[in-house]
Amino acid sequence: MVTTIRVLYADTDMAGVVYHANYLRYFEQARTELLYAQGVDLARLHEEAGLVFAISSCALNYHRSAGYGDRLAIEVLPVKVGPARVTLRYEVRCNGGDEVYVTGETTFAALDATTGRVVRLPPAMRDAMARAAAEAGHDWPG
Amino acid sequence: MVTTIRVLYADTDMAGVVYHANYLRYFEQARTELLYAQGVDLARLHEEAGLVFAISSCALNYHRSAGYGDRLAIEVLPVKVGPARVTLRYEVRCNGGDEVYVTGETTFAALDATTGRVVRLPPAMRDAMARAAAEAGHDWPG
Amino acid sequence: MVTTIRVLYADTDMAGVVYHANYLRYFEQARTELLYAQGVDLARLHEEAGLVFAISSCALNYHRSAGYGDRLAIEVLPVKVGPARVTLRYEVRCNGGDEVYVTGETTFAALDATTGRVVRLPPAMRDAMARAAAEAGHDWPG
Amino acid sequence: MVTTIRVLYADTDMAGVVYHANYLRYFEQARTELLYAQGVDLARLHEEAGLVFAISSCALNYHRSAGYGDRLAIEVLPVKVGPARVTLRYEVRCNGGDEVYVTGETTFAALDATTGRVVRLPPAMRDAMARAAAEAGHDWPG
Repeated sequence: MVTTIRVLYADTDMAGVVYHANYLRYFEQARTELLYAQGVDLARLHEEAGLVFAISSCALNYHRSAGYGDRLAIEVLPVKVGPARVTLRYEVRCNGGDEVYVTGETTFAALDATTGRVVRLPPAMRDAMARAAAEAGHDWPG
Repeated sequence: MVTTIRVLYADTDMAGVVYHANYLRYFEQARTELLYAQGVDLARLHEEAGLVFAISSCALNYHRSAGYGDRLAIEVLPVKVGPARVTLRYEVRCNGGDEVYVTGETTFAALDATTGRVVRLPPAMRDAMARAAAEAGHDWPG
Repeated sequence: MVTTIRVLYADTDMAGVVYHANYLRYFEQARTELLYAQGVDLARLHEEAGLVFAISSCALNYHRSAGYGDRLAIEVLPVKVGPARVTLRYEVRCNGGDEVYVTGETTFAALDATTGRVVRLPPAMRDAMARAAAEAGHDWPG
Repeated sequence: MVTTIRVLYADTDMAGVVYHANYLRYFEQARTELLYAQGVDLARLHEEAGLVFAISSCALNYHRSAGYGDRLAIEVLPVKVGPARVTLRYEVRCNGGDEVYVTGETTFAALDATTGRVVRLPPAMRDAMARAAAEAGHDWPG
């Protein structure tokens, strides 16, 4: 799935490009839209099931610099779904071009909002991620 | 009271200056240090009294632009303390100079963390703000 | 004109609501989309005319708190256009409701990117703002 | 070298903990203070040598969650210095404890501010990083 984002002044730094940390915000937006598209509503999981979601690791590689006003296309794909964690991969392209500007991965876990402990993913989340991967023509073992 | 902050890349934008919204983060840092200096610990008020604090209004005027690496001095002073709200005034100076770069005011209220309703300020907070104003040679009626 | 934004984790704070400074980012997004809709491209004005735009003042009032996952509608309207400055007014509503959550105003000026000095607004910008105000049924003197 | 940072409301999210992307800002602050301590002033390198610095990759692992008001100690150490790139490693501890909350690495490159191309690191930067590593009892080949 692809989410489109226009770069704001707020996102740039004095080098005239998107500040590196801000791609993590773009990734969150892409991830959230992927979840909504698959029927998973994190706000409801928080209210009804007392779950919050936390990033346990991330890694990004910056190949090219995007600047103010650029239209970024953030492609997001689940690449691993475990009992408690989901790993997503991201590719950022720019202004309709094919070149990849930024790649990244994030892994998130479900936490009990009260205790802060990692808990099993809700089945709806696992199913949604499997569906999203299948739609993108990607399989994973288990 | 004066808090000193060094401008990071993260704070600047493509115009080479501090992005306007980031002064509100600087103000929060100055406000928090003022509260700590007066013995008010917002984390403890959250845990022990179930209070959170929310900004109900703010206003900023930008007179000059600060850039990367500048050392900003944020002066903060309580100018009004009501039953449920505190208004603070801020002046930002740069690299040891006298010129005022940015001025601002924020008003915050105490909220019950569960209901989200405005509640009376804890007396410790009111006393701390009165003390901070007196130390700065400033009085307010009531 | 109305811009719709979904609240992310990135935008919230430990009180469970949108951190107050983040509305200024939402306002920038609404303002940028208004300008694009009227044919004004700030990236091009930067590249071709050497102009950057800086906020000279802002003021916000927070009436209600929006939280994670809420869909905010940011309405933006030019309320004053001077030789060098434009003032915009914003109203934020939530999840399709009528209640106003946040109101605000920002004033921006055009600056010469090299000298940092305030310059006259490009006529295209003035015309675009007049058009946007007229479309919204709003007039201003001069 | 260790930089101490107090967690603000601005840094937290609705899960009550520091939003994951904000550690990259903390890392920038720690990195900048390391550079200053070694006599490297990025603002001057920008003005005098036309250099900007861009992150080319980063990776973070989140082991424990820090929350509002926590005092974080960010330890930073150069672990690799190449002709054009420096890799730094970070460890985040909390409130004086020994447990590591977050670990991370960032690699940055020097860019010509006009062309955006990667250029050789200034010798002063290389020397400063070697000194910082030696002071921390760390060597690297070359």
